[in-house]
Formats: sequence, C-alpha cells, structure tokens
Amino acid sequence: MSEIEALAAALRGGDTTAQSLARRSLARIAECNSDVGAFAVVDADRALSAARRADHELSDGIDRGPLHGIPMGVKDLIDVEGLPATRGSAHFADHQAAMDAECVRRLRTAGAVIIGTTVTHEFGYGPTGDRSWHGPARNPHEPGRMAGGSSGGSAAAVAAGMVPAALGTDTGGSARIPAALCGIAGYKPAFGRVPTEGVFPLSPSLDHVGVLGATARDCRLVIEALAPQHSGRHCAGGTVARVGWLTEAPDAPVTSAIADLTRGALAEHDVTQVPCDALTGMREAFSAIQNSEAFATHADRVHARPDLFDAEVLDRLRSASQTPGWCLVRALHTRAAARERVNSLFEHVDLLASPTVGITAPPIGDREVTVNGASHAVRSTLLALTSPWNLIGFPALSVPVGHVGRLPVGVQLICPPDREELLFSVADDLFPPGAVA
Amino acid sequence: MSEIEALAAALRGGDTTAQSLARRSLARIAECNSDVGAFAVVDADRALSAARRADHELSDGIDRGPLHGIPMGVKDLIDVEGLPATRGSAHFADHQAAMDAECVRRLRTAGAVIIGTTVTHEFGYGPTGDRSWHGPARNPHEPGRMAGGSSGGSAAAVAAGMVPAALGTDTGGSARIPAALCGIAGYKPAFGRVPTEGVFPLSPSLDHVGVLGATARDCRLVIEALAPQHSGRHCAGGTVARVGWLTEAPDAPVTSAIADLTRGALAEHDVTQVPCDALTGMREAFSAIQNSEAFATHADRVHARPDLFDAEVLDRLRSASQTPGWCLVRALHTRAAARERVNSLFEHVDLLASPTVGITAPPIGDREVTVNGASHAVRSTLLALTSPWNLIGFPALSVPVGHVGRLPVGVQLICPPDREELLFSVADDLFPPGAVA
Repeated sequence: MSEIEALAAALRGGDTTAQSLARRSLARIAECNSDVGAFAVVDADRALSAARRADHELSDGIDRGPLHGIPMGVKDLIDVEGLPATRGSAHFADHQAAMDAECVRRLRTAGAVIIGTTVTHEFGYGPTGDRSWHGPARNPHEPGRMAGGSSGGSAAAVAAGMVPAALGTDTGGSARIPAALCGIAGYKPAFGRVPTEGVFPLSPSLDHVGVLGATARDCRLVIEALAPQHSGRHCAGGTVARVGWLTEAPDAPVTSAIADLTRGALAEHDVTQVPCDALTGMREAFSAIQNSEAFATHADRVHARPDLFDAEVLDRLRSASQTPGWCLVRALHTRAAARERVNSLFEHVDLLASPTVGITAPPIGDREVTVNGASHAVRSTLLALTSPWNLIGFPALSVPVGHVGRLPVGVQLICPPDREELLFSVADDLFPPGAVA
Repeated sequence: MSEIEALAAALRGGDTTAQSLARRSLARIAECNSDVGAFAVVDADRALSAARRADHELSDGIDRGPLHGIPMGVKDLIDVEGLPATRGSAHFADHQAAMDAECVRRLRTAGAVIIGTTVTHEFGYGPTGDRSWHGPARNPHEPGRMAGGSSGGSAAAVAAGMVPAALGTDTGGSARIPAALCGIAGYKPAFGRVPTEGVFPLSPSLDHVGVLGATARDCRLVIEALAPQHSGRHCAGGTVARVGWLTEAPDAPVTSAIADLTRGALAEHDVTQVPCDALTGMREAFSAIQNSEAFATHADRVHARPDLFDAEVLDRLRSASQTPGWCLVRALHTRAAARERVNSLFEHVDLLASPTVGITAPPIGDREVTVNGASHAVRSTLLALTSPWNLIGFPALSVPVGHVGRLPVGVQLICPPDREELLFSVADDLFPPGAVA
C-alpha cells in the first residue's frame, strides 16, 4: 500500500482526520525544514481550513477520491493563488500568484490540501537544486549534499516525511533526478498530458509537470488526479515485462555500484541490452533546444536586470544564448528522428530502463565529480539519462532501489505514451507495497 | 484568354501541333537565350518526342486538359529525370536528377512538354537572380538589368516568349519578384499545397513550389494541374472585392511612380488602407527562420567545400549561421502570432494588396538602390513585401500592371488559403484577356 493509500484508509476508517494530517505535516516542517530547505512558503492557515473543509465533506459523504484530505507541496515554479511565486529568483521576490495553475486547481478539485510552496532551483534551470533565492534544497539523507533539482524542495519535502507527495516540474529530469537522489519516486508523464498553464516556463517544448511521491504508486494516484482522462486500470501484480536495459555510454557515466544495484533490481524481468549510444545525439539536441528556448524565455530579464540572477544561472543563460539557430533546426530534426527510432525499439521491448542518475547526491556546490576514476561535470552527469525522454516527451519514472553507502539510488523506467499502466505495474512489482520504508 | 488557353484552342482547332509549339519554343530559345540567360539546359530531343506523343494522344482522342502539348520550363532547383540538376551551383556541376520531382511528374501527367531547366540563383538563395553557376538571369526588357530571383530564368523564359509558363520556387518571393521585374505573372500557392518532393530545399518551412506564367490565368491553369484537389471553379468576371491596401513602411521602400501605378490598378475595388507596420516583425521573423534553415541545409557544404560557392552566397550563408537559436524561437512565436493577426485582417477585407516590389529591375550586380532619395539594400528592398507571405504560408500572386519607363511593375494580391479562387478572379478582372500584351 502506498503512503497516500494508507492515509486515505486511515481517514475513512476514522483513525485520523485531514486536520490532523495537516497539523502533522506542519509539525514535521517546523521540525526539520531549516535543515533541508524543502518548503519556501508554508501556508498554515489556508492549509488548516482546507483540511477542515475536507473533513466536513467526508463526514457529509462527499468523497473526492484518494487525494481527499492529503497534504501536498507545490513547487515554487507553479502558481498557487495568493502565495508568493518567486520561481526561486530575486526577479520575482515580490510577486504573488493571482490564480492557481491548472494542475493546482485539479489537485484542489481532487481534495488535496496544499501545505505551501517548495524550493526550486532559480527558474527551474539547474539539476543541482542548490541555486535558489531561498537557498539550496538539501538532501534529507545527508544535508550537506544536494537534493538535486530543479524540484529539489519537493523531493526533500517528501523524503523528509513532510508530505507524501508534491508537484514538481521536469524539463530535463527536474522531477526524476531529485527523486533518485533523495530516495523517493518521481514521474514525468507524457508531454502535454498535464497542462502547464500557470507553470512558469523554462523551455516550453520540453517542460512537463512532474510528480514526486513516496512510492511509484503515490505518483500514480496524483497523476490520475492531474490527468483524469487516465484509464485508471491498475494492472494486477506479477507482470513480467520485456525490458531494454540502456547500456553505458562514455558521456553518461555510471558508478559501478549504481550500475550493479539498478541492473539487479530488474533481474526478474526479461532484460535485453540496448546500446545507448543513440542517446548521445538526443542529449545534444536536448541542449540546443533547451538553450534556445530558455534564453528566449529570459532574454529580456538578462538584458534589463542581469544583477538579479544567481551568478551561475546568469552565466548559463548567457552561454545558452550562443546556440546558433541552424543547430536548433538540426536539433528539431534529430528530435523527430529520435522519436521514430525509440518507437521502433519499443517494437521489441515493453519498457526501457537505466539508472536514473549515474552518481549519488554530490556535496552542495560541487560542479565536478569523479566517476570510475574519470572527472565529469556534475550537471551533465545528472542529466545524461533523464533528458532524452524530455526531448521526445515519453513517460519516465524514477523508483528508489536501494542505497550506496547512506545515499539513495533510483532506477528509471521509460515507456511509450500509451503504456503508462504497464510502467506503473512493473514499478509496483519491483517494489511491492511495504518494501519501501 | 490566357496564352495557354489560346495555344490549347489552336491545338484542338487543328491550327497548330504540339510539335510545332515545341519547335517554336526551341527556336525562340536559340534566338535569344544567350541574351537573357533564361534556360540552363535545353532538352530538345525529349521535348520533341514528348510533343509527338502529345499530338498522337490528341489525335487518338486522349485529352489531358489545358496543359496538353504546352511547352514549359522547370527551374534548375527542381529535379527533372535525366537532366543535370545543378541547383545553380558548382557543388552539383556533375549531378543528374535520378527521377522527376513530384510537381514535374504532375506536369507530365497533365500533358505538358518539358523543354528544359531554367537558371536559378545559386541554391535559390538570392532575390537578385544574378549569382548562378550558369551566369546571371537577365531581364528581357533590358538585358543589363536583373531578371530578379531566385527563379530568374523561369521569369525571363516566359517574358521572352520562350514558353508560356514555367515552374519556379518561392521561399521569400522567388517566383513573384522576378515575375514583377519581368512583367509577367507569378504565383506562390498556400504552403504545402504543391508537394516539394524532388525540389532542392533552401528553408523547408518557407519553401513553396511557384508558378510563372504570361498572365494570372496561365498561373491558374498550371496550379490546377499541380494541385488537382483545387476546386477548379472559375468565378465569373466583374467581382468587386474589399481590398486592404498595405501602406508604406520605412523598411519597405516603394518609389512614388510604383506606388501610384499599383494603387491605381485597384481603383475599381473597395479599397481601405491597412498600415503595414505589422509586416516589420514578420520580416525579421522570416529572416531568422530562413537564416537558420538555410544554414542547416548547407552547413556541411560550407564546412567541406566553401570554395565551390559563389562568394556572395557563401558570405550570406556565413552571416546566416550567426542567427541565435533563441531568436529563432521568438521568430516561431512571431510567425504564429502573425498568422492570427493577418487572419483577423481578413475578417474585414477579401484580399490584401501591395506593390510586389517597390523598385523596378536594378542593373545586374547592383546591391544598393536609391528610393525616394534614400539609399537601401537591393535584396531587402526586393523581398520586403513578398517574404511576409512565405512566413505565414498564405497564397500571393503578382500580376503585371504597367511600366515605369521601359521596366515592368507588378501588383501583389494576397488571400487566405481558402480564398484562392477570388484572388484569381480579381486578377482576371484587373487585366482582362487581351489587355496584357
């Protein structure tokens, strides 16, 4: 049973109330938010009154489904009516959201109780999660290390037990990377499945609303509330899938310990090796598109008030402005060709899989990492295995599979847009209810 | 009656034969091609045998319609099976087309007799038409002046009476500009209406197959053969249309004589003024897209064999490579917004109209021109009023309306993709059969 399912059962069994869940969430935040930097703004009053409403509704026989009365966090890149919407940047230090983003509206319709906003890397532009107007998001497993990003606050909030699930975004891995580094589940649905209205853009053709949850099943419950067209069929357990395991490539370094742990997690499936050399072109295309779109999003701010950006983010944006248009044109062709090629891979396998991230959480501020004896850039190492699925908009899920030392490790499952059910079904089997702490 | 209609009637009335038309065409080419540089390759043998077949078919009662037995030219950017396909470049000096482009196949199906290929500006990349591996296309009205481009050879061929119509392409005005400068009609249909398979790309999201004909009605007959889904309804004459006249803008200079002549041509219609300031953003967006796509098309050649390019074309390509990706992203947004804005203009008018080109044909090689006392670049002046319609893919027709001195002037009519019939109907009224020499 997932964390949300357990809470939902307790609520309906009279063992707890939404108000008690909200108070427990607020207490946990008070206890450890200063250590992990998960929440940017806590909206205690409105959370408690939403919880009260949820309790009244339940006692009146109005049941909004599994998220009814469940406390949740929302990444500070997603508008929550009446709350500061800083996008992690001094540019929006004084900005307040006028209305809910569509995904937040859907959460409320499903009965969720919004506790507050969670820390984002400035403008969602960084997988390290440690450059934000609110300060770095920290890894609950070791607060001197990154939570990952850019949805680092959401991941830390879930991993620290503040909320069972939170909204994030995912442009190159921003939900899956912090999920993997923090030992929780993170899901990026198919492109366009969850509307991005009210979500501050980074690179609109790569931007996705993402979900972070204690388990894959928690992510599934949230995604069903966000995208109600979902079939809702939960496959029975015991599925054996044909899994294509993406082998290592020089530009996607993976430590031996992580390679063994993640590969071993799929041992019960029918696993074939899929050379992931093809991902190289996808990463380059991803970068050309993200660079061009991100600078188009921020060009006016870069020109008018460069001083308000974090220095590293500003530097990255200026580099991004150098990508030539003709490379973008080629990247768009590569994207179309890659979608075809990956679709043809899926004629032979049900799912693709890889480590989510090839390293465990680096210390906050680090930008170089040694993997199997060679030095690599932290950012590109974090993004190497997640960003290709933003390029082609395929669903991708990160599930925790254990630890290396004290630090968590995630495995990534990827499927075509119409095979999301199988993805979750395999994830459930990998980590049956109760197996995840 | 259009030139093609007159020939078609003579053919069916027994007053001439397809072979005689082909021979007349070949004779005219022999007579003046060295003066005007219209044809790149003349395919006399195959033309004569195609004409013979056309005659046999007609005498056997097989009538393929208005183009049956009509001699035509095909721009050297469009593949004609078995003929050299140089694209106007030394890069393809030895290249031969393996099969017909789809548009050529359709011409043949309609019974047209392909006489040969016509001179294109190198790779179709230039509205001046004077930089080609075959030498400059020259204006039949004054051979020291440009025919315009990039379909300069096709325009010169029609204007010199070598063929009644020819295929061109149009990425920023490449059919309409030389049509206007040479005193014939040129048509760019809606984007995608005529397939570009077998047409060498320049900027694929702006590239159109275009038609050059002695009159608008000739263009219409050819386009109906190229895109048979066309309704084919020819409106009755006497249409009075609501015409939005695009007023001058500083970056779209028009000589007073051309402004008067073109504006006067529409006097019988219900004309309102439409400020064309909006076109400024469209031109910039056009340039960003064309630059990026054109360099993506040619990057490998620029790197491998820069020496094989015409120096000016190479220089332009290298400049084009400097357009940043983020500007392309913004240009794509501008394109979408412009399409909306222009669509809303068409709620109040049936057609938009402007001069096709604000100047008459400049001397070959000139790159600066004085308009109303100020100096302007020739290329941007030639493209200023035609390229916006490539950006949004709307049909645009250039029709000759008279002369300034000895040099021809064209007016441009623009309509939404579903209003092509009205466009041609108004063009017919402007210049009733017999009125065009």
